[in-house]
Amino acid sequence: MNKSSGTELSRRQLLQTGLVATAATLIAGGAEFAFPPQARALGDSLPSWNDGPAKKAILDFIHTTTDKSSSKFVPPEQRIATFDQDGTLWVEHPMYSQVVYCFDRVPAVVKAKPELANVEPFKTVMTGDREAIAKLSTEQLMKILAVTLTGMSVDTFEAQANQWLGSARDPRWKKLYTELTYQPMLEVLKHMRDSGYKTYIVTGGGQDFVRMYAERVYGIPPEQVVGTAGGTSFGYDKSGKPFLTKDPKLLLNDNNAGKPEGIHMMIGRQPYAAFGNSTGDRQMLEYTKAGSGERLAMLLLHDDAQREYAYGPAQGLPDSKVGTFTQALYDEAKSKGWIVISMKSDWKRIFAFEQ
Amino acid sequence: MNKSSGTELSRRQLLQTGLVATAATLIAGGAEFAFPPQARALGDSLPSWNDGPAKKAILDFIHTTTDKSSSKFVPPEQRIATFDQDGTLWVEHPMYSQVVYCFDRVPAVVKAKPELANVEPFKTVMTGDREAIAKLSTEQLMKILAVTLTGMSVDTFEAQANQWLGSARDPRWKKLYTELTYQPMLEVLKHMRDSGYKTYIVTGGGQDFVRMYAERVYGIPPEQVVGTAGGTSFGYDKSGKPFLTKDPKLLLNDNNAGKPEGIHMMIGRQPYAAFGNSTGDRQMLEYTKAGSGERLAMLLLHDDAQREYAYGPAQGLPDSKVGTFTQALYDEAKSKGWIVISMKSDWKRIFAFEQ
Repeated sequence: MNKSSGTELSRRQLLQTGLVATAATLIAGGAEFAFPPQARALGDSLPSWNDGPAKKAILDFIHTTTDKSSSKFVPPEQRIATFDQDGTLWVEHPMYSQVVYCFDRVPAVVKAKPELANVEPFKTVMTGDREAIAKLSTEQLMKILAVTLTGMSVDTFEAQANQWLGSARDPRWKKLYTELTYQPMLEVLKHMRDSGYKTYIVTGGGQDFVRMYAERVYGIPPEQVVGTAGGTSFGYDKSGKPFLTKDPKLLLNDNNAGKPEGIHMMIGRQPYAAFGNSTGDRQMLEYTKAGSGERLAMLLLHDDAQREYAYGPAQGLPDSKVGTFTQALYDEAKSKGWIVISMKSDWKRIFAFEQ
Repeated sequence: MNKSSGTELSRRQLLQTGLVATAATLIAGGAEFAFPPQARALGDSLPSWNDGPAKKAILDFIHTTTDKSSSKFVPPEQRIATFDQDGTLWVEHPMYSQVVYCFDRVPAVVKAKPELANVEPFKTVMTGDREAIAKLSTEQLMKILAVTLTGMSVDTFEAQANQWLGSARDPRWKKLYTELTYQPMLEVLKHMRDSGYKTYIVTGGGQDFVRMYAERVYGIPPEQVVGTAGGTSFGYDKSGKPFLTKDPKLLLNDNNAGKPEGIHMMIGRQPYAAFGNSTGDRQMLEYTKAGSGERLAMLLLHDDAQREYAYGPAQGLPDSKVGTFTQALYDEAKSKGWIVISMKSDWKRIFAFEQ
């Protein structure tokens, strides 16, 4: 089913409905990708960043909020930083990894329930015909997400997702998806934690899915992953042992206004710093900057077609079906003092696997 | 409105519907009640506990799971302990503090909306007639909770709740409600944290309400409070500044099966230790004990009429409208190796303010 990986699906279609909801508890094991040893200039916490306004903004913010003599000092327990995932911490183009996962799961689902083989949208997905798959309606996509992400126990979901995460490879770099994290952002996460910040992922992706690898890949424990979340139902198996089943009921659509709402629900504190890359992150950045004292809001612009991708109308680049960085968002960033990170000019290196 | 404090209201009525939902972000300031200096025997982390099976179970569990040479060693990042609040960390009898808060808020609500003065159930509450108030239906109680806990901005809610928390006093001890925490449990919280455990409150009470004081009173930050939670709506004020409004929409009813469901949603890891005191905690304890390795499940029995209260049919004591500790729960605890804490015989001291 990796044939479907190139299909273009609308982030808005997939995530506005928010059914990208999934399963938790940390899964140990698997390969280790995070924080590879790297040549690091002594004293430079962000060695993969070029000197420039973006790097300076991050370093200045951390210094200002953690220096006890600063008027903008933030007590350690209030140091919260939130990070969008898709397109901010790892590659989102041309399709969200979790959506690839859902397509890849369809054959196993159809094998278990053969009656689905001749029912749409499963019939189309099984053909592997990219053009036809690209034309699936939002409603049909929701059916695929529902059947691949819900209806099983949390343990079963975790086993399925873990198996995929340890084997599926992206079509361009031929790497595990968890290797497609941005090295400069891993450095920001680590530097913020070393400075007393609690780092959170706040993602439109499925909370349970991202929790599967967040600790190992980003150093972020499951309880610090806020995502689109579905409900679970508590029950007992035949032996009387309790377990949770993943329900197709949406509790939190963690996109747009849902991001500050999810932050309130899951964290209960306004972040001091927030990082995003699209209109889905706008409200999170606004909410962050609305707090008193020093606050940092940053947006990553994908303007590096050679090393990664270039998309988004903000720079006259072609629009993408994922991670829309509109001109309006760009204008808001400029007018409000949010920092726009240029992948092309601010980052020395994109991935840890590059040398 | 403290006249209403003695009214008996059913925990099940109030919490099965789960509308006890509320507002967050840490509120600084206020009096400091937590962790008063205490005479502590050298090396005794639980000085307010009498020697006995309950104290031994806690100390043995912590030792076994944190000793690197133990076969039951638990890595630090997996050390999660969850605590019910009402009746486990502080007094719940004869009425949940948060329900007292809601009744106490009614006059201010009626003043702001005079049209409610002649509408039930507000009319009855305004009379202060305890007998009549005790007869209010669940539906009527829900109206009181909805109007006092939702419909305002998070900031407004926090200001209102903070004002009450700093001034309202319980009718028996004449103390602030936040002073009615159990000293032995504060010692357990601290000892577990000192041993690398992350301590969480998992309460049927309103998440936003408990987050107001949890850090100052229990040393538990807002992001580690899981409770019954309502939704919020993101919006902008006239100046364009973003804010959140508390909606009367229930997202999580954190009681009974809702406790493990809430733990999955908010934490994403199975606890290694859980503490409760009623049937509302049963599923959380079952879920905790279902994990592999060493797990601790404890239930507090209120059997001390002189120093606190005695209620619950488990010991042939009169049933209470709050914190029901049934015979069935007692039998399950005994058959499954959960530890029952006797307030009367296991605790040297109940409150920090006692000397």
